[in-house]
Amino acid sequence: MHKLRVAIVGASGYSGEELLRLLLTHPNLELTCITSRQEAGKPAGAVFPRHRECQLRFIQPDVDQIAAQADLAFLALPHGLANEYAAPLLQRGLKVIDISADFRLRSLEKYARYYQSEHPAPELLQEAVYGLPEYYRQDIRQARLVACPGCYPTSVLLPTLPLLKAALVETGGIEAFSMSGVTGAGRKLAAPFLFPECNESLRPYAITGHRHLPEIEQELALAAGVKELHINFLPHLVPVNRGIHSTILMQAKNEKAGEQALECLQQAYQNEPFVRVLGKGELADTKNVTMTNYCEIGCAYDPHTGKVILSSAVDNLSKGAAGQALQNLNIMAGWPEDCGLR
Amino acid sequence: MHKLRVAIVGASGYSGEELLRLLLTHPNLELTCITSRQEAGKPAGAVFPRHRECQLRFIQPDVDQIAAQADLAFLALPHGLANEYAAPLLQRGLKVIDISADFRLRSLEKYARYYQSEHPAPELLQEAVYGLPEYYRQDIRQARLVACPGCYPTSVLLPTLPLLKAALVETGGIEAFSMSGVTGAGRKLAAPFLFPECNESLRPYAITGHRHLPEIEQELALAAGVKELHINFLPHLVPVNRGIHSTILMQAKNEKAGEQALECLQQAYQNEPFVRVLGKGELADTKNVTMTNYCEIGCAYDPHTGKVILSSAVDNLSKGAAGQALQNLNIMAGWPEDCGLR
Amino acid sequence: MHKLRVAIVGASGYSGEELLRLLLTHPNLELTCITSRQEAGKPAGAVFPRHRECQLRFIQPDVDQIAAQADLAFLALPHGLANEYAAPLLQRGLKVIDISADFRLRSLEKYARYYQSEHPAPELLQEAVYGLPEYYRQDIRQARLVACPGCYPTSVLLPTLPLLKAALVETGGIEAFSMSGVTGAGRKLAAPFLFPECNESLRPYAITGHRHLPEIEQELALAAGVKELHINFLPHLVPVNRGIHSTILMQAKNEKAGEQALECLQQAYQNEPFVRVLGKGELADTKNVTMTNYCEIGCAYDPHTGKVILSSAVDNLSKGAAGQALQNLNIMAGWPEDCGLR
Amino acid sequence: MHKLRVAIVGASGYSGEELLRLLLTHPNLELTCITSRQEAGKPAGAVFPRHRECQLRFIQPDVDQIAAQADLAFLALPHGLANEYAAPLLQRGLKVIDISADFRLRSLEKYARYYQSEHPAPELLQEAVYGLPEYYRQDIRQARLVACPGCYPTSVLLPTLPLLKAALVETGGIEAFSMSGVTGAGRKLAAPFLFPECNESLRPYAITGHRHLPEIEQELALAAGVKELHINFLPHLVPVNRGIHSTILMQAKNEKAGEQALECLQQAYQNEPFVRVLGKGELADTKNVTMTNYCEIGCAYDPHTGKVILSSAVDNLSKGAAGQALQNLNIMAGWPEDCGLR
Repeated sequence: MHKLRVAIVGASGYSGEELLRLLLTHPNLELTCITSRQEAGKPAGAVFPRHRECQLRFIQPDVDQIAAQADLAFLALPHGLANEYAAPLLQRGLKVIDISADFRLRSLEKYARYYQSEHPAPELLQEAVYGLPEYYRQDIRQARLVACPGCYPTSVLLPTLPLLKAALVETGGIEAFSMSGVTGAGRKLAAPFLFPECNESLRPYAITGHRHLPEIEQELALAAGVKELHINFLPHLVPVNRGIHSTILMQAKNEKAGEQALECLQQAYQNEPFVRVLGKGELADTKNVTMTNYCEIGCAYDPHTGKVILSSAVDNLSKGAAGQALQNLNIMAGWPEDCGLR
Repeated sequence: MHKLRVAIVGASGYSGEELLRLLLTHPNLELTCITSRQEAGKPAGAVFPRHRECQLRFIQPDVDQIAAQADLAFLALPHGLANEYAAPLLQRGLKVIDISADFRLRSLEKYARYYQSEHPAPELLQEAVYGLPEYYRQDIRQARLVACPGCYPTSVLLPTLPLLKAALVETGGIEAFSMSGVTGAGRKLAAPFLFPECNESLRPYAITGHRHLPEIEQELALAAGVKELHINFLPHLVPVNRGIHSTILMQAKNEKAGEQALECLQQAYQNEPFVRVLGKGELADTKNVTMTNYCEIGCAYDPHTGKVILSSAVDNLSKGAAGQALQNLNIMAGWPEDCGLR
Repeated sequence: MHKLRVAIVGASGYSGEELLRLLLTHPNLELTCITSRQEAGKPAGAVFPRHRECQLRFIQPDVDQIAAQADLAFLALPHGLANEYAAPLLQRGLKVIDISADFRLRSLEKYARYYQSEHPAPELLQEAVYGLPEYYRQDIRQARLVACPGCYPTSVLLPTLPLLKAALVETGGIEAFSMSGVTGAGRKLAAPFLFPECNESLRPYAITGHRHLPEIEQELALAAGVKELHINFLPHLVPVNRGIHSTILMQAKNEKAGEQALECLQQAYQNEPFVRVLGKGELADTKNVTMTNYCEIGCAYDPHTGKVILSSAVDNLSKGAAGQALQNLNIMAGWPEDCGLR
Repeated sequence: MHKLRVAIVGASGYSGEELLRLLLTHPNLELTCITSRQEAGKPAGAVFPRHRECQLRFIQPDVDQIAAQADLAFLALPHGLANEYAAPLLQRGLKVIDISADFRLRSLEKYARYYQSEHPAPELLQEAVYGLPEYYRQDIRQARLVACPGCYPTSVLLPTLPLLKAALVETGGIEAFSMSGVTGAGRKLAAPFLFPECNESLRPYAITGHRHLPEIEQELALAAGVKELHINFLPHLVPVNRGIHSTILMQAKNEKAGEQALECLQQAYQNEPFVRVLGKGELADTKNVTMTNYCEIGCAYDPHTGKVILSSAVDNLSKGAAGQALQNLNIMAGWPEDCGLR
């Protein structure tokens, strides 16, 4: 059988490395091409000591070379490069799964505001599919271009969307408090991410206007069937390597609705391979999902304030990035959705 | 000069150890008595290797012995023992600073509900002073019995009280999201607090009905001048030793009020020795306050949702427990408030 | 095809959990039975939240029941129970892979000295095979009873045995300095393993007479062809979850021998699936092997002192326990040695 | 009384920050000048949030300005700058305590070999005093130029020197295994020191030819009264912020000598304010000395191999750098040696 040939463009960061880890053991595909400006020429095994055996060499990110070697490309790049990679690769007939933020927002205006530059490839926005499989599976199946959700949005959307769709909660006053491990910052050489600056430190950042905010609001509004919706999204950096935990508050429509929330979530996800809704009284813990593609969700109703309190955990590099990207690929290729992900 | 003789009752836990550390270097007092059922007979130096030089021996917690040796007693005990220690020690003429929860709540009914037992010494509730110096300094000065605030309440009340008092924010819809280091759980031998269960783990707990909830609500309501007030208090356990960070959302009365919040905090605390209000755009980080008695507060207004977003950091064992207890003692004794706390 | 039916006796500790994780995805076997006194009656998924989906229930460790359900049993028990489990299970026709220390030492006298009790099943010692596949593969293939090496011994023996066998180093003056993550202590409820006692702590323990010492010395002596050999083995506890790193010093016979050491190791392990000998100048790092069955080995010669300096890293729960146990099973069953281990 | 005016040259690293912390609360001196090329113009409080209250501004490291403002300068600079700062400051009449490596080695040849450049100020070597107070107190008292020992050397020398001086151990075959927290690497922006690269990682580095090796060997040889002596010094990086632990093996001259080692240490240090020799069977733990100027030493004799096993712990930034520097200043100034260090 001809195996699908796959490229990772920008493979030297943490998400790229995680993708490499997953793709190397996937039975139905062949990783044929990895690119990195700074590591070009070196074998992956020399850059990632965990994968010492891997002889595949990084190349410069040349679109023609990538197109010659692969049927599908994962883009694990900074945002803003869509016209350099996504557009020309699609033109050369490849499918593209973009882990960057370029195709997540439907609004050019919001892209410009939150990413502080014009959108690099507006003509492609229309056809890009938001790669949250639990909600866009049908579209993903036929997509040429999938925009993988951000790590925080994945952790916030999975617990909240069913309740908004079922209209059990109000659309106003949603608050999401998130904690992220330090790999979430990427392999960035900056003082705040040195070990002594993160260890024994608990700190919020970007509490107004984080770039994942408009992405979360967009999908919440779509689920709620409203035009616009505003939330507070409050990210925190905490000293773990991997994992995002989000605690989310939503106002229940009424007491009965609040008490139905857990069951609503259980029904919504009962057939989902990678969402675990916990039992009554249980709360999500990142250590139960790290190194897996699971999102774990706990749900409680607080009659004291009338709030539904959601607790979710994902591995930021897996369900929050590379794992979900591969889940999308499995869907696009018509393979079992968990292929290579157990 | 006659030095004040001080006892620590229940000195073998983390808060007791921190108190011991502080009291050993305090210039105006003499630590004369430390009690512990399980360590009785051993010198402190044998139990706490950081204080190897300390020859003072633990004794059994006998009220008469304590009273014979001390003018003032810190109680670093589990809640529910007020009638065994606080009451008889007061009767024998000692002053008492209680780090447990016994005298924090004014409502017997709430004590019974949240601590699941009748209050052990209701006759003393009336005279107990809530030991948050920034708000009860005058009462503390003359108190015989001070109830030190909980660690979480300290981190939530200091940033919020000025805004409620100034009526810049609504009393409804307050949400406090807190992260605590593991010393917050005490020296409890339980599987969830083993190193491998906490390291690389992020998890909420007790998100409805934590015991610090009624304490926070009581003080918020008093500051707001309302009878009752309900908030969501969401504690999380994260892998650091020391430190509590709280991110708190309050609805600004209006945009102007929201924009005044930071200045309101700066004015409220400009003369306080242990509260640092950060500049515009700055957020609190626990690593800047661990091993100190400071509470650090950041404040931002989010016009997007109309919320004031507060960020506070304390060391749970210091400003959250032993340090604040000593600050109270300094006030009661008429000493400089920061004596022994720099 | 009839799948091999496998039991884990004593499955509630960290090694048992790791075995469960590995066995659940192994293609050629069926995990039919897990025992635990304290968890009997509960499904594995309720005890190990990472494996929520696992419905298999813990049973009491009854030999007849185990024998009825399994063809082979892993024993993940404390030492000293060999006559309660290993002996009767062998008698009932099962094969046994023992992760405890009961069958690692050939000398009854040393067992009694280091484990402070008489050996529980001396009649089985003769036939037990030391389960270090790289050295005992032939015997393991035909064994009924395999004694899996300890975690520290695995990390010390793999780098040293080839050099002793090749007589490149002296048998005297070997020193092994090891650092272990806290899962190495098991799920023991003891104060020294609480998070705040391990985090930000670096400490040696049992530096004379650790129980793994005679095991290491036994295998070193066998490799060197000497009757007896004494080393210093210096274990340290450090704040990571998983991983053992050992730095080992051996006196080179001469300069030429010292310079041949790296090549000797590379040749010794060139066909081994789970030993990675690093290149010149490279040193082992536990983070490259955690969650894998690899042992990584670095080797340098120091002309300054004439010492060969070895550096090795394993995951204490994988190559140091459960992974190696499964590698042994694969050998016993005639399957590819890395089956279920990638 | 005229207070001693003190400068910190190169105050923006971790050692500089620790010095600043200590000097700010020292009763007998005034910190008048702090320099940093990159932070010049900013107040210390803006650079070090723990010291927000500190208004002192960083200036460019200009020798004349420093000399105008201070009587004594601490140099917390990279090595190799002695002729730019130490020499001209001494010429202008200041005393100098150098935390860099420039004046630690007596041999110009070794300096050139290990630091790969010619010594920058050989004319000063003669008068520089090695600032290990326990051994050079008399010389320090009269010194103009003190070279503070490295962090590793402090942790290795304090436990070993008394045994060499007492001739209880051989001078050959000494091995020192050390583990260091990540602040030991300084505030260096390099990928290996990012949080995710250090957390859950255990790794050796520079196991042959670390720059602290000749410094250790020099002092050991002096204590032993031999011309030259070679040891293995094996540093490891482990995920803690602060702390160095060293485990050191020395061959006892004979069994009796081995058994006298602990008592020898206890006598050697009985009057030392900052060395704690532990009791029989006790081992050093970094968590007992972090944030203090103590060196803690455990000692055991292993009759099995005839080795004395030493275990020592220091805080790398305190007794390993800034604390020891201040201890030296106290000696030079004739103040109590622990002034400002409790």
